[in-house]
Amino acid sequence: MVLVSRAMSTADASGLTELRDALRQFAEEREWDQYHSPKNLASALAVEAAELLERFQWLTEDESRNLPPTELAKVREEMADVLNYLVRLADKLDVSLLEAARDKIKVNALKYPVDKARGSARKYSEL
Amino acid sequence: MVLVSRAMSTADASGLTELRDALRQFAEEREWDQYHSPKNLASALAVEAAELLERFQWLTEDESRNLPPTELAKVREEMADVLNYLVRLADKLDVSLLEAARDKIKVNALKYPVDKARGSARKYSEL
Amino acid sequence: MVLVSRAMSTADASGLTELRDALRQFAEEREWDQYHSPKNLASALAVEAAELLERFQWLTEDESRNLPPTELAKVREEMADVLNYLVRLADKLDVSLLEAARDKIKVNALKYPVDKARGSARKYSEL
Amino acid sequence: MVLVSRAMSTADASGLTELRDALRQFAEEREWDQYHSPKNLASALAVEAAELLERFQWLTEDESRNLPPTELAKVREEMADVLNYLVRLADKLDVSLLEAARDKIKVNALKYPVDKARGSARKYSEL
Repeated sequence: MVLVSRAMSTADASGLTELRDALRQFAEEREWDQYHSPKNLASALAVEAAELLERFQWLTEDESRNLPPTELAKVREEMADVLNYLVRLADKLDVSLLEAARDKIKVNALKYPVDKARGSARKYSEL
Repeated sequence: MVLVSRAMSTADASGLTELRDALRQFAEEREWDQYHSPKNLASALAVEAAELLERFQWLTEDESRNLPPTELAKVREEMADVLNYLVRLADKLDVSLLEAARDKIKVNALKYPVDKARGSARKYSEL
Repeated sequence: MVLVSRAMSTADASGLTELRDALRQFAEEREWDQYHSPKNLASALAVEAAELLERFQWLTEDESRNLPPTELAKVREEMADVLNYLVRLADKLDVSLLEAARDKIKVNALKYPVDKARGSARKYSEL
Repeated sequence: MVLVSRAMSTADASGLTELRDALRQFAEEREWDQYHSPKNLASALAVEAAELLERFQWLTEDESRNLPPTELAKVREEMADVLNYLVRLADKLDVSLLEAARDKIKVNALKYPVDKARGSARKYSEL
C-alpha cells in the first residue's frame, strides 16, 4: 500500500511532465519561445477557452450533455488546446499544476463548507 | 527501462485521475452536479481563464516573466481554477485530457511544419 | 422626415463620441495612455466580457431572462465596462464602431440568408 | 448652445437605437430569438471578445499600435461583433448602454481618484 502510494506519488505528475517536455520541444524547434511570455500565453489560453465555449454557446444544457461524436471530437480538440497552453504557462512560471490544483481544492473546501454550499450556486462571498 | 516506462505509462494519468476523483467528490458533497452541465463548465472555464489573464493585462511581457512572489501566488491559484474546471469538464464528457493533448500536438506538428513555422507567429492558415 | 433623418444622421454617433471623449479625458488625467495599447485594451475587454458572463454562468436560460434588480444592476455595470473598453480601443485604432457594426450586419446577411438560417443555430460554414 | 446640447441629448443614442432595431429585425427574420437568452448572448459576447483578442495575442504592444490595413480590417470586424452582441444583450435586458457607461465612469472616478491612480496600473483595491 505504501509502495503503491509512493510509486504513484513519484510518477504522479508524469503525464503532465511528459506533456510539458513535448510542448517545450515543440516550441524550441519552431523558435517560438520569443512569443511565449506568460502574458501572451495567458492570452492564448483565454482565447482557446473561448473557442471551447463557442462549441456550446447556442446549445441547451441538455444538448451539451449529449454531443454527437463529430461535435465531441471538436470539443476534445479545444480542450487539448486549453491544456497545452496551461501546461506551457506552468512551465514558464515553474508552477506545479497538480499541486496548485490540490491546494485550491483545500481553499475551496473552506470557502464552500458543505452545510452552507449544498445545492446552492451562489458565490462564497454571497453564501 | 522498459519497466520504468511501463510503470509510468500505467500511472501516467494518475495525478489527473486523482484530481478528477477529488473534484467529483467535492461536487457530489455539495450537490453541484445539477449545475455542472458541460455548457456551464465551459463558461466557468472561460471565466477562470479570463481571471488569469487579468493578472497580466497591464504588465509588459518582461514584467510577466518576473512576477513578484505574492503576484505569482495569485496567478498560481487562477491556473488551478482553470485546471480544475477543465478536469471537471473532461470527466463529464469522458475525455482523456492527456491523450487529447498528445493527439493535438501531432495535429499541430502537421499544421506547423518546422521549416515553415520557424520564428513566425503567424496562424497555420497564413503560413 | 428628411430633416429628422438628417439630424439623426448628423448626431448619429454623438452618444458614442461623447463617451469616447469622456474616456479619453479620464485616461489622460490618470496618465494611463501608456498602458492603453490596443493589445492591452483587447485583453481588458475580454476580461470584462468574462466578468459579465460570470454573472450568468450557473443560471438557467430562463433565470437569465428574469434577473432580480440587484443582479441586473451588477450585469449593467459589467456591460458598461465592456462598452467603455470597446470605445477606448476604437479610439486608439480610429475605428467608427457604428459604421463597423452596420457593415458587419450586411456581411452577416450574406453569410446567413434568411431561408437557410431560419430557426437554425448552426454556424454559416455548417449551414 | 443649449439647443444643440438638447438636440444632441435627444438624438444621443440614436446610433445605438438604430443598431438595436436592425439587430432585432435580423434576429426576428431568422427566428433566432429562441437562442438569444441573456445567458447565451453573454457567452457569444465573450467568445467574440476573445476572437478580437486573438488578433493581438502574439503581437508586441508596439505592433498592436501599428496594424497593417488588412489586419485592421479584421480587427474592426471583430469589434463590430462585440458591439452587436452587446447591443443585443442590452435590448433583451432593457439596459441603456450609454447611460450605464456614463454611470460607470462616475463610479470609476471615485474608485480611481486622480492623485492616487496617476501613472499606476494597479487595481483600485490595491491603490
